[in-house]
Amino acid sequence: MTEIQLTFPDGAVKSFAAGTKPIEVAAGISKSLAKKAVSAKLNGQYVGMNDAIENDGEFALITTSDDEALELLRHSASHLLAQALKRIPKFANMHFGVGPFIDNGFYYDTDNGSGNQVSIDDFAEIEAMMHKIVAEDLPIVSREISRDEALTLFKNDPYKIELINDLPADEKITIAVQGDHVELDKGGLVPSTGWVKHFKLTSVAGAYWRGKSSNPMMQRIYGIAEWKQADVDAEVKRREEAKERDHRTIGRDLDLFFTSQEVGSGLPVWLPNGATIRRQVERYIIDKELAKGYQHVYTPVLSNLNLYKTSGHWDHYREDMFPPMDMGDGEFLELRPMNCPSHIMVFKHKPRSYRELPMRIAELGMMHRYEKSGALTGLSRVREMTLNDGHTFVEPEKLEEEFKSILTMMMEVYRDFDITDYRFRLSYRDPKNTEKYFDDDDMWEKSQAQLKRAMDDLNLDYFEAEGEAAFYGPKLDVQTKTALGGEETMSTIQLDFLLPERFNLTYIGADGQDNHRPVMLHRGIVGTMERFTAYLIEMYKGAFPTWLAPLQVQIIPVNVDAHGEYSRDIQQKLQAAGLRAHVETKDAKMGYLIREAQTNKIPYTLVLGDSEVDGQTVTVRKYGEDKTQTMSFEDFQNIILTDVSHYSREVND
Amino acid sequence: MTEIQLTFPDGAVKSFAAGTKPIEVAAGISKSLAKKAVSAKLNGQYVGMNDAIENDGEFALITTSDDEALELLRHSASHLLAQALKRIPKFANMHFGVGPFIDNGFYYDTDNGSGNQVSIDDFAEIEAMMHKIVAEDLPIVSREISRDEALTLFKNDPYKIELINDLPADEKITIAVQGDHVELDKGGLVPSTGWVKHFKLTSVAGAYWRGKSSNPMMQRIYGIAEWKQADVDAEVKRREEAKERDHRTIGRDLDLFFTSQEVGSGLPVWLPNGATIRRQVERYIIDKELAKGYQHVYTPVLSNLNLYKTSGHWDHYREDMFPPMDMGDGEFLELRPMNCPSHIMVFKHKPRSYRELPMRIAELGMMHRYEKSGALTGLSRVREMTLNDGHTFVEPEKLEEEFKSILTMMMEVYRDFDITDYRFRLSYRDPKNTEKYFDDDDMWEKSQAQLKRAMDDLNLDYFEAEGEAAFYGPKLDVQTKTALGGEETMSTIQLDFLLPERFNLTYIGADGQDNHRPVMLHRGIVGTMERFTAYLIEMYKGAFPTWLAPLQVQIIPVNVDAHGEYSRDIQQKLQAAGLRAHVETKDAKMGYLIREAQTNKIPYTLVLGDSEVDGQTVTVRKYGEDKTQTMSFEDFQNIILTDVSHYSREVND
Repeated sequence: MTEIQLTFPDGAVKSFAAGTKPIEVAAGISKSLAKKAVSAKLNGQYVGMNDAIENDGEFALITTSDDEALELLRHSASHLLAQALKRIPKFANMHFGVGPFIDNGFYYDTDNGSGNQVSIDDFAEIEAMMHKIVAEDLPIVSREISRDEALTLFKNDPYKIELINDLPADEKITIAVQGDHVELDKGGLVPSTGWVKHFKLTSVAGAYWRGKSSNPMMQRIYGIAEWKQADVDAEVKRREEAKERDHRTIGRDLDLFFTSQEVGSGLPVWLPNGATIRRQVERYIIDKELAKGYQHVYTPVLSNLNLYKTSGHWDHYREDMFPPMDMGDGEFLELRPMNCPSHIMVFKHKPRSYRELPMRIAELGMMHRYEKSGALTGLSRVREMTLNDGHTFVEPEKLEEEFKSILTMMMEVYRDFDITDYRFRLSYRDPKNTEKYFDDDDMWEKSQAQLKRAMDDLNLDYFEAEGEAAFYGPKLDVQTKTALGGEETMSTIQLDFLLPERFNLTYIGADGQDNHRPVMLHRGIVGTMERFTAYLIEMYKGAFPTWLAPLQVQIIPVNVDAHGEYSRDIQQKLQAAGLRAHVETKDAKMGYLIREAQTNKIPYTLVLGDSEVDGQTVTVRKYGEDKTQTMSFEDFQNIILTDVSHYSREVND
Repeated sequence: MTEIQLTFPDGAVKSFAAGTKPIEVAAGISKSLAKKAVSAKLNGQYVGMNDAIENDGEFALITTSDDEALELLRHSASHLLAQALKRIPKFANMHFGVGPFIDNGFYYDTDNGSGNQVSIDDFAEIEAMMHKIVAEDLPIVSREISRDEALTLFKNDPYKIELINDLPADEKITIAVQGDHVELDKGGLVPSTGWVKHFKLTSVAGAYWRGKSSNPMMQRIYGIAEWKQADVDAEVKRREEAKERDHRTIGRDLDLFFTSQEVGSGLPVWLPNGATIRRQVERYIIDKELAKGYQHVYTPVLSNLNLYKTSGHWDHYREDMFPPMDMGDGEFLELRPMNCPSHIMVFKHKPRSYRELPMRIAELGMMHRYEKSGALTGLSRVREMTLNDGHTFVEPEKLEEEFKSILTMMMEVYRDFDITDYRFRLSYRDPKNTEKYFDDDDMWEKSQAQLKRAMDDLNLDYFEAEGEAAFYGPKLDVQTKTALGGEETMSTIQLDFLLPERFNLTYIGADGQDNHRPVMLHRGIVGTMERFTAYLIEMYKGAFPTWLAPLQVQIIPVNVDAHGEYSRDIQQKLQAAGLRAHVETKDAKMGYLIREAQTNKIPYTLVLGDSEVDGQTVTVRKYGEDKTQTMSFEDFQNIILTDVSHYSREVND
């Protein structure tokens, strides 16, 4: 009998008989380890707990404490799903594609031909069958087979045959067997079906075989699998909440926007309700910036292609740009991918003096990105977007001051929108690879130090990220937590030493010489209107603060004939005060109308009947509250105007 | 001696000896006619007063009373210019291209090779020489010559040789001779140089030979010629005013916008001052429309090309559209030429009920037009434009009411901008060619009658234009007088029976059936932001009413050290009230700063010194007024806020 040498992670080397199984190795160490061990790796390759080890090598056990173990569990859950489907008569002839683990779960691509299609109504039956197989606790064993053997074994499964035929000639073919079920599989599975105790099927969706639209459409069945039932439950709940908060769901329910292939992929249409929110945000940020000394401009969406050749976008960003358009007389126009070159043209339009600096050029600048249709999502990933963009041209020695002033404005804006969950990231160049960056060591060192000092001076918490700077300069990003737990960059301040060089920007200094080079700061506060609105929808769960709400006051006359006139009178007074109010004259029960106003998340509902007409009062119900309050119209108007003037902050904030 | 028969315009036929000259014919009728006759026509072809008539035919004399005579005068003036140039030694070797009459004047294309270029400094000398030739009163005589003779005669003038060689082989070649000067010319000239008494050279500009950029660049010398000196003077004045009012001139002087080849042809950049005006106009019109029940949306600038195939734009308007862009997955995106299909998508997005009608969808919609670069001008003719667009979907029986409501709003807007010089044009289909229009006689008859009745009901003056309707429906255009005397369509209301059919638009009627077809109204009130702003610049001559002025208050401290703080204090109070104010701290004399504020047409200038600080007052000078007034800050704030709230109307209007 041959011996093999296994080297353990701690460096210890032990001898075993060839053919020893990982489960035996684990048991030899401790009973509890054998219970916790999910799989093993030999020289980085998975070896199942029940599979023979035939060679020497680096050996490691994977236990339920390892993050990786969850992937094996989910991978095994997909096999369990396939096995269960084949045991259910109406799915017995189903063909299978691939069944991998994914973030938080797994899926399997299936094709039942002209037979029954899988629907969520089948999930209970399928899950029951899966639980039955779990109870059978079938051992899972891997085995290498020949190509001919594989082609025979899967002869009824055309997708698997295609996968086998696509394997290189010298590639080993392995299968995983669990009882009556065989999978074409490279390993990375739990020891037996009994390990997959906690799971749930979640959805079924169409998916092209191998993601190609020329291939057949299959049914992709999704599921969750966890070590504990509590984790399954938590994930189900998280997903429900996510769906409830998803800006696409709320966007549809509240008539905020829609996307359609007919209009064009990645090109959302803002319906009146969504457009109202956007208009409020736009006016807010423009007015804020004007008050802070920004000069707003309108620059064209199309520009001469040369502009992007000079800027470098055409060389480095071309694949994200739309094709240039030939104007027939030597000029090529391009849908702009960024606004910076346009703002540089504004700066360059005249000789500039140091007295004019910092010059702050801002715009709600529309840009276009040539994205593949597969990547597009609602308002958050689009092909046409309008950025709250700004570029400051500043003397190098005034950089720190300007940086602070942008930060201060940024935090005022966050406060107004009640955005509280964010962190600052200072991105520096990689000190070990300085040659990868714009070549001016002194500029880098000084400016990085300036940013850091500014953050410290303002007493702001931040983390530093070496190697995360752009080629052209260091930057500060504000990472906000999304409603669904992710993180995205909302605001950014980026220093740019490069573009001023490329466009040969200069200003006349105090010395009268027109050879001073400004530094350029790119900055965005609320990002694109599209992404920011998506963010707001999810953050507020569609219950917009009064200043942003598409409709601010729903007025319900108890009886349209008797109280309609008074209602319209109140409406006109509110409109004259710049508020958005509507009189609901639909023929429906009062209770229904009040519930509907709540469903539509309208901040204030007024119910007006005899006593209100008599007393010239209004009865007010605030969104989310059950109690109502009767007051004079003037008192109500004061309350709502104060509310609006406080933006998203609490009125007593 | 042969006889010829001439038939006069009154039908009379008279005999003359062949070779008789028009001057003799005229003299035979009356002395005064012979004095007034400028040229003659035989069978529609010009015969000079000194040229022999050799054939029978329809004969007419052209006198100074005929409009056409002015063209002959200007044509002759161009010959006079060429003759004068050749007599001036430094231009003696000049080559000549073509020298036609144009609207209000004439030009001649010249090429002096490496010799002196013509500049406006030469005009006095050239005009003096022209007057000398006028005094010589050289008779102008035309003569037919052979091709060989022509090629010899013009052998030193390569442009003329090219013109001769390009003439078809069977074409007659004629020359016009005046003293020492010969022109290749088809006729249409005054009798002698003495007739061209009143003229003025106006400008010189580069022009490619025959308008082709691959050809040599020539110098085009422009001039004015009239029958009376008073008309020359009036035209010079008109042009000076036009230039002064030209939105491009004012746009540059007041830093409102610029265009440049570097940014792209036909793609103006709105500088902060111009952007402020535009933003005021945009907010004004949006708020106005919202108050009138319009629902504002944002729809994408790019759309699926199919949308424009369905709408018919692709078939009928393609040459004005930018090239479609291939998204690589079968989708083609197109820069939209019009916003209507986008608004139709908003209507179509849900089933609609008659209760929701009229549905008024509005947007500041950006569109693109594929224009040749030669046609582009400042803000008034551009490739990218943002239209104050709106589409109403209405029940056919409610058409008249909706039409009236749009008209009412339109007139409120005109009043707010103080636009008073306009007229209404009702455009109908051509009753003799009804087959050229959308096929629904009943719809046409009814709707044309409805428009007419609406105009009458509202007591509006209008003129009717048969055959001026669009294919898809009748329309009302508002023709405004431009500052320069021209006329352009500012607003329009167009009925459209076609698009609702093409997109199969329906609504659910009171009968519960979803098969009712709405009529669509296209309407624009202020047109595109570009054209409208150009119009406003010219109408106000850059002196914008306070609500639109980029800067509303210029604050000048008498001494920055002593009065700067008070000035900034006043500025902050004005800004807090939503006004645009600036403190001028430039080191310059008071008189200079006040003149500068006037040059920049700033509505209010405040001068603040000791007595203002002591009395907490401001000394106010209104734009265009010499007198100043000292008042409390509160009084001043009331005055300016009232001014702003009245838009462009007089405060006591």
